[in-house]
Amino acid sequence: MRQAGRYLPEYRAVREKTDFLTLCKTPELAAEVTIQPVDIIGVDAAIIFSDILVIPEAMGMHLEIEEGKGPVFHDPIRSEEDAKKLELIDPSEKLKYVLDAVSLTKKELNGRVPLIGFSGSPWTLLTYMVEGKGSKSFSQVKKMIYSNPALAHSILDKLAIVAGNYLSAKIEAGANAVQIFDTWGGILNRDEYLEFSLRYIEKTISLIKRKKEPVIVFSKGVHHSLKKIAASGTDVVGLDWTMNLKKVRKTIGQKVALQGNLDPTVLYAPEEKIREEVKRVLKSYGKGSGHIFNLGHGILPDIDPEKAKALVKFVKEESVKYHN
Amino acid sequence: MRQAGRYLPEYRAVREKTDFLTLCKTPELAAEVTIQPVDIIGVDAAIIFSDILVIPEAMGMHLEIEEGKGPVFHDPIRSEEDAKKLELIDPSEKLKYVLDAVSLTKKELNGRVPLIGFSGSPWTLLTYMVEGKGSKSFSQVKKMIYSNPALAHSILDKLAIVAGNYLSAKIEAGANAVQIFDTWGGILNRDEYLEFSLRYIEKTISLIKRKKEPVIVFSKGVHHSLKKIAASGTDVVGLDWTMNLKKVRKTIGQKVALQGNLDPTVLYAPEEKIREEVKRVLKSYGKGSGHIFNLGHGILPDIDPEKAKALVKFVKEESVKYHN
Repeated sequence: MRQAGRYLPEYRAVREKTDFLTLCKTPELAAEVTIQPVDIIGVDAAIIFSDILVIPEAMGMHLEIEEGKGPVFHDPIRSEEDAKKLELIDPSEKLKYVLDAVSLTKKELNGRVPLIGFSGSPWTLLTYMVEGKGSKSFSQVKKMIYSNPALAHSILDKLAIVAGNYLSAKIEAGANAVQIFDTWGGILNRDEYLEFSLRYIEKTISLIKRKKEPVIVFSKGVHHSLKKIAASGTDVVGLDWTMNLKKVRKTIGQKVALQGNLDPTVLYAPEEKIREEVKRVLKSYGKGSGHIFNLGHGILPDIDPEKAKALVKFVKEESVKYHN
Repeated sequence: MRQAGRYLPEYRAVREKTDFLTLCKTPELAAEVTIQPVDIIGVDAAIIFSDILVIPEAMGMHLEIEEGKGPVFHDPIRSEEDAKKLELIDPSEKLKYVLDAVSLTKKELNGRVPLIGFSGSPWTLLTYMVEGKGSKSFSQVKKMIYSNPALAHSILDKLAIVAGNYLSAKIEAGANAVQIFDTWGGILNRDEYLEFSLRYIEKTISLIKRKKEPVIVFSKGVHHSLKKIAASGTDVVGLDWTMNLKKVRKTIGQKVALQGNLDPTVLYAPEEKIREEVKRVLKSYGKGSGHIFNLGHGILPDIDPEKAKALVKFVKEESVKYHN
């Protein structure tokens, strides 16, 4: 999950000098904020600072990040006509700035911790591209899959190709693992999830050129298709905090590693409670390898950095006994 | 689920003359909009037009419904001091206007269809009371349960008593069934859900004075505790559209009836697709009694009423063969 962000005064200092998109597009600055949590919080891996919406932007959409309101596309994709404007880009050209950020970060990390690259899943990218902004009911993208599924499929197919090539390029630039964020897979019922989300996650994974670099898939809220996600070609399945690690390990833990699943709001709690919750998550997974401790979603902007530090400390202390 | 609303021109005509809260508080108007979907859409039951937040308002909080922004409490409950202001009300006094609306609606329905009353679950009411407005991260209420669980428990206990008495009074006023809406149970992990939500749903149910009137519990997104919900004392379990009716029926369908679970956005689809989805839901439950066809959440405000009519027609046509 994203580790850099507004909760860190060091990040806010960088952001005072520049807007969000310029930060994403300036490798030196992206590398700087990517490494901040490694230095300050002590996490075991860095995740490249970027945004999932750089893909649709590179494909020709006009992206604006409005402070406090989130990302907005003023030209959402609603018709075949709109979709024609989407360019099947070569990420190594159009998203070179991300790859440069990956290379530079990798160099600056100098082997201290691994570096993770990421992409939005095709479905999650589509929801933003069609809605144009955050949504509660996702009415526009649902209208598309019900009224014109062929159009949705054609865009999703294009997105899977771009995402696959993008993640391949990140690995080539030095990423040690790549994560596919499917933030909105959970708004679909099971059949729709398989048809419109998982199918294109599988296509994305199949296109990733890699040696040993693992793939992580996180479909938030998708409690009904964990076996199918585990069979998608991924190496790791991310789980939100409503999932029971113990149960999920029994079901799919022989095939894949599990990532998660602390509720990010636990970082609002007093330190004793954070430790208690860390112990609960570790105990739930139990002994042996195959668990990547993580939050069940990104760090919230008003978290006290001291709490994030405490979390990392507690995980390091409490997990020892599970590794023997 | 709420059936009356902005999607109906007849509802908008009533709303032009009055604001939302006045509509809730004027039995004649509440009865009028409650019956609209029965007349216009042809549903098999009426659900009283009201809002779950009338309970905290009656307990002393100042509620404002801001058009397009939803409900706001400008005096959220964050401390023991705040909580002391909450009055343990007698709903038959302070919420008499809802009971009058129930009696009047019942009279005007004149036995045509049953009438359903509802309450928010204690946990869902608490989230609004603590956040003060809609939230994505629910940081304030999570802070409360982590930092001061005793305070949360004391308010939840009070809310369960009021909700239980409120639903009893609705039954006395003529409601044929009562529903407990737990819209935000799904933001909790399993342990927290059992401790802060289900426990108080159980208390609410235990306090409901009733003869044969069934209780319906709908904890949106709570995929992990369906067996426990089925054992809560409820007669019906509501399911959102991410749940598999067939599987859930196998697990808990001998104990309780199931309600749901069409995605409300399916009403954006062309009529053929709506019929197809109706068939899918009916087939998933299968033959025999114990299924209440419903949406997995409320009707969205920009739905075409013709689509809602078509849905009801399709359910009536397609369900016949499952009842033999």
